[in-house]
Amino acid sequence: MTPDVTPKSKTNPGNFFEDFYLDQEIVHPTPRTVTEGDQALYIALYGSRFPLHCSADFAADLGFEDMPLEDLLVFHMVFGKSVPDISVNAVANLGYAECVFGVPVYAGDTLRAVSRVIGLKENSNRKSGIVWVRTTGFNQDDETVVEFVRWVMVRKRAVPGPDDADDEGIEPPVVPTLSPVVPAADLIVPDDLDLEDYDVDLAGQEDLWEDYHVGERIDHGAGMTIEEAEHQLATRLYQNTARVHFDKIRMENGPMGRRLVYGGHVISMARALSFYGLANALRVAAINAGAHTNAVFAGDTIYAWTEVLDRMEVPGRSDVGALRLRTVAVKDQACAGFPDKDEDGAYPASVVLNLDYTVLMPRRM
Amino acid sequence: MTPDVTPKSKTNPGNFFEDFYLDQEIVHPTPRTVTEGDQALYIALYGSRFPLHCSADFAADLGFEDMPLEDLLVFHMVFGKSVPDISVNAVANLGYAECVFGVPVYAGDTLRAVSRVIGLKENSNRKSGIVWVRTTGFNQDDETVVEFVRWVMVRKRAVPGPDDADDEGIEPPVVPTLSPVVPAADLIVPDDLDLEDYDVDLAGQEDLWEDYHVGERIDHGAGMTIEEAEHQLATRLYQNTARVHFDKIRMENGPMGRRLVYGGHVISMARALSFYGLANALRVAAINAGAHTNAVFAGDTIYAWTEVLDRMEVPGRSDVGALRLRTVAVKDQACAGFPDKDEDGAYPASVVLNLDYTVLMPRRM
Amino acid sequence: MTPDVTPKSKTNPGNFFEDFYLDQEIVHPTPRTVTEGDQALYIALYGSRFPLHCSADFAADLGFEDMPLEDLLVFHMVFGKSVPDISVNAVANLGYAECVFGVPVYAGDTLRAVSRVIGLKENSNRKSGIVWVRTTGFNQDDETVVEFVRWVMVRKRAVPGPDDADDEGIEPPVVPTLSPVVPAADLIVPDDLDLEDYDVDLAGQEDLWEDYHVGERIDHGAGMTIEEAEHQLATRLYQNTARVHFDKIRMENGPMGRRLVYGGHVISMARALSFYGLANALRVAAINAGAHTNAVFAGDTIYAWTEVLDRMEVPGRSDVGALRLRTVAVKDQACAGFPDKDEDGAYPASVVLNLDYTVLMPRRM
Repeated sequence: MTPDVTPKSKTNPGNFFEDFYLDQEIVHPTPRTVTEGDQALYIALYGSRFPLHCSADFAADLGFEDMPLEDLLVFHMVFGKSVPDISVNAVANLGYAECVFGVPVYAGDTLRAVSRVIGLKENSNRKSGIVWVRTTGFNQDDETVVEFVRWVMVRKRAVPGPDDADDEGIEPPVVPTLSPVVPAADLIVPDDLDLEDYDVDLAGQEDLWEDYHVGERIDHGAGMTIEEAEHQLATRLYQNTARVHFDKIRMENGPMGRRLVYGGHVISMARALSFYGLANALRVAAINAGAHTNAVFAGDTIYAWTEVLDRMEVPGRSDVGALRLRTVAVKDQACAGFPDKDEDGAYPASVVLNLDYTVLMPRRM
Repeated sequence: MTPDVTPKSKTNPGNFFEDFYLDQEIVHPTPRTVTEGDQALYIALYGSRFPLHCSADFAADLGFEDMPLEDLLVFHMVFGKSVPDISVNAVANLGYAECVFGVPVYAGDTLRAVSRVIGLKENSNRKSGIVWVRTTGFNQDDETVVEFVRWVMVRKRAVPGPDDADDEGIEPPVVPTLSPVVPAADLIVPDDLDLEDYDVDLAGQEDLWEDYHVGERIDHGAGMTIEEAEHQLATRLYQNTARVHFDKIRMENGPMGRRLVYGGHVISMARALSFYGLANALRVAAINAGAHTNAVFAGDTIYAWTEVLDRMEVPGRSDVGALRLRTVAVKDQACAGFPDKDEDGAYPASVVLNLDYTVLMPRRM
Repeated sequence: MTPDVTPKSKTNPGNFFEDFYLDQEIVHPTPRTVTEGDQALYIALYGSRFPLHCSADFAADLGFEDMPLEDLLVFHMVFGKSVPDISVNAVANLGYAECVFGVPVYAGDTLRAVSRVIGLKENSNRKSGIVWVRTTGFNQDDETVVEFVRWVMVRKRAVPGPDDADDEGIEPPVVPTLSPVVPAADLIVPDDLDLEDYDVDLAGQEDLWEDYHVGERIDHGAGMTIEEAEHQLATRLYQNTARVHFDKIRMENGPMGRRLVYGGHVISMARALSFYGLANALRVAAINAGAHTNAVFAGDTIYAWTEVLDRMEVPGRSDVGALRLRTVAVKDQACAGFPDKDEDGAYPASVVLNLDYTVLMPRRM
């Protein structure tokens, strides 16, 4: 019990580029039992109204054992667990792909997350590198609840100097091949899903899978202004520890000058707004790609519009189809004119999110 | 799967005056299973301390199967469901009446709402009209949890021009006769309510029904400042989609210049403040009338005072009585002087709510 | 039913110094059934990640029947109940001591609180006095969940004038003897605690009791900015009614000029931040002393660092030890330099909390 004046640091500095290696498996801390309290907060944060997630009776009528938690709430919780190990030293979150939602998550389930390194590429400046990980969220029965690939640019711990004799040079990069879209055959439809009693009146919209057409655009109309307290509550609920969302002082001294809203908060808000026009999009089944094209700050007002990219049959199911959608979130500007990237693919400052994802929707029977 | 460049709009524009007809029944979307998470948020939003809603043991001692959700939380949830169909195109919410609370609502119950059109009156300017609806909230057993009448001024979809040959003229108005106060005989006292073990110490106040006197005024003392994040969280929790509460940009371009606080948020805050002086007002049994006399914005500080309007016996019960109250909410000014309407019935700018309602309170036995 | 124009006041003015007497027992109102909703809000408010409180499975593996609520959440709820009776007329909250956490609290438990007056000392100015109370929180089985002493300076109702013939003079003071630290033998380790399967990977840190050394200092790194909506939501969740936290108008007219953040909010935030470096500090077992050394307001950013004061064996247990810690919360300044009191014991304006407390931590087995 003698005092130790130079103890090893107790605070985890997070992983740097050198700490990652191919096929590395990282068990993320903090398993989480999700509860009805989490779902109540989710509704308070976004005003989500998809009835499958709001009503135990509606869910039971479709064959679910209870109302499942919102798919994106599950995504955020699993994502949040991965932050301290994967992206706390990230210079940039570069993208995600191949996100597939698995078995439904119910209040009382306990979620945990594991990531595997599937790609590594040092940058030519030798100061940072890109790390690809596949992160999987499991429930207490080791069933997959969500799985996704993301890639981040991470700082190196030590930057070799020009005279550094030990420098072994850049390793050959390993870049994973990622699917641009999750095929319909890979979407997971809950075994017990039974749409025979699906009641469009309770969702509030009559349009079903057949009523959507490739190329169709929907302006979701309503807008929602984000407050600092709201995005902080949300991001902490997900136990996402990225400091850029919480620390005003630190951010005032950085290039953005203020706290940044977690990109997932914008995704959830866009999904909630999309209820106007997509009320029967009962489940998010996959996220194919996503880009946070401009930063979002407290005080920004989010609007959204959606383009139907594809209408896919789900193998073996005549009662449910998939719609591949592109939802664009816009700040401080209504979406009547469908603000979008220009011909060169450049986004105007008002466009903050371009999300390519796939939803399940009942078919006419 | 051919693209359809001019699809029917997928976003529900809401109902206009022409869309309503007498005896029309409107089934509102989004059934909702209420949870302990909702009740926890309600306490966090208002600091409510009525023990019947805070303690399962206290509730069980009074014959309830569990702690019921706050009556006003139930009201807001049912009201919220009606907004997309009834008042999304409203120019003004004009009033409510005959609001009676039914069977207690417990965590796990699933609420749904239905409205019936009971009155219609086109305005002489032909641009809008008044619609009266009776909205009923049901639980999963089709028992009524709350029922109320409200009337709103709604825009017409098409305004006939002076030369419009098809104009059939104004229909004769149908204006329902509404009771100015819910009679004591119509109040619903839960069958199993048993006040033999009612413990005033746990409510924190000794005064019971006999101790209140008609004409008595109570200054509730404490004040509470409303933040944007708070009223937005509350209003989304109720799944109330009225855009005036959420969209800063839209409101900056309107006459008020900023987001409006949902009137029900002020009602709940006034009720929570009224605990100081009405701690044994264990249930809200009815709302007789209510007027939101001035707009409330984030940053306003709410105080409240109450006048006892009537003390009514409840037929068949010697253990519980009813108090008809008038609670006045005031902004940015303490209530020592009981700010009120003047002799002409005009309200000063500080008075934001005049609520006429009826509570149940134990009697001395 | 005749109007009574001068009724007895219905609003409890709270207790003044004259209202307290030695050995007085005060039963606090508003029993509270705690729920998963409370715990979800707690995570959203602080981002707490201690796995014992986040995962029912992790808790079960350690012998708990479910995931217990955060110890500090229990403290705040019991403390909140005592406010209307003890400190609503307080000039100052002077300190607390001998705070011991008892049996774990689970969602569904109903908490109540009782205080006993253990000390009284009138101030020489005859305008106020100091009251010491021991407050105990019980669950529905009358088991103690937390017990603590606190002392507050309370105004007198009537200040005797110089000619006041009835003035009996100052009573001899009764000042309780308080222990500066809760001895290890008095710490309560849950009977069923079983650390054989304790998994450091799920907490995210390998350091156990043996790895901490007296005198060691840990900078927890991250900072968190407090918003008005957040501390108001927290303080109302605890049903703490102290007006200084909620009433902007009242506070603008006072010496601080704005709403004050509840000191317990800062304690909980510091504890959540301390996860970086103390991830295996699985339970708060005692609070030995605490000082809120400077006021905290919305907009302040809180950082924290911790000094290990003592490493104590727990009698009869070889699997778990106790660490006595001093956690210092600092505002608007990172903790790399360990901001602290100076040689004279004076705190710089940046230091807002000095908390002396004891945690339980697994030992190497």
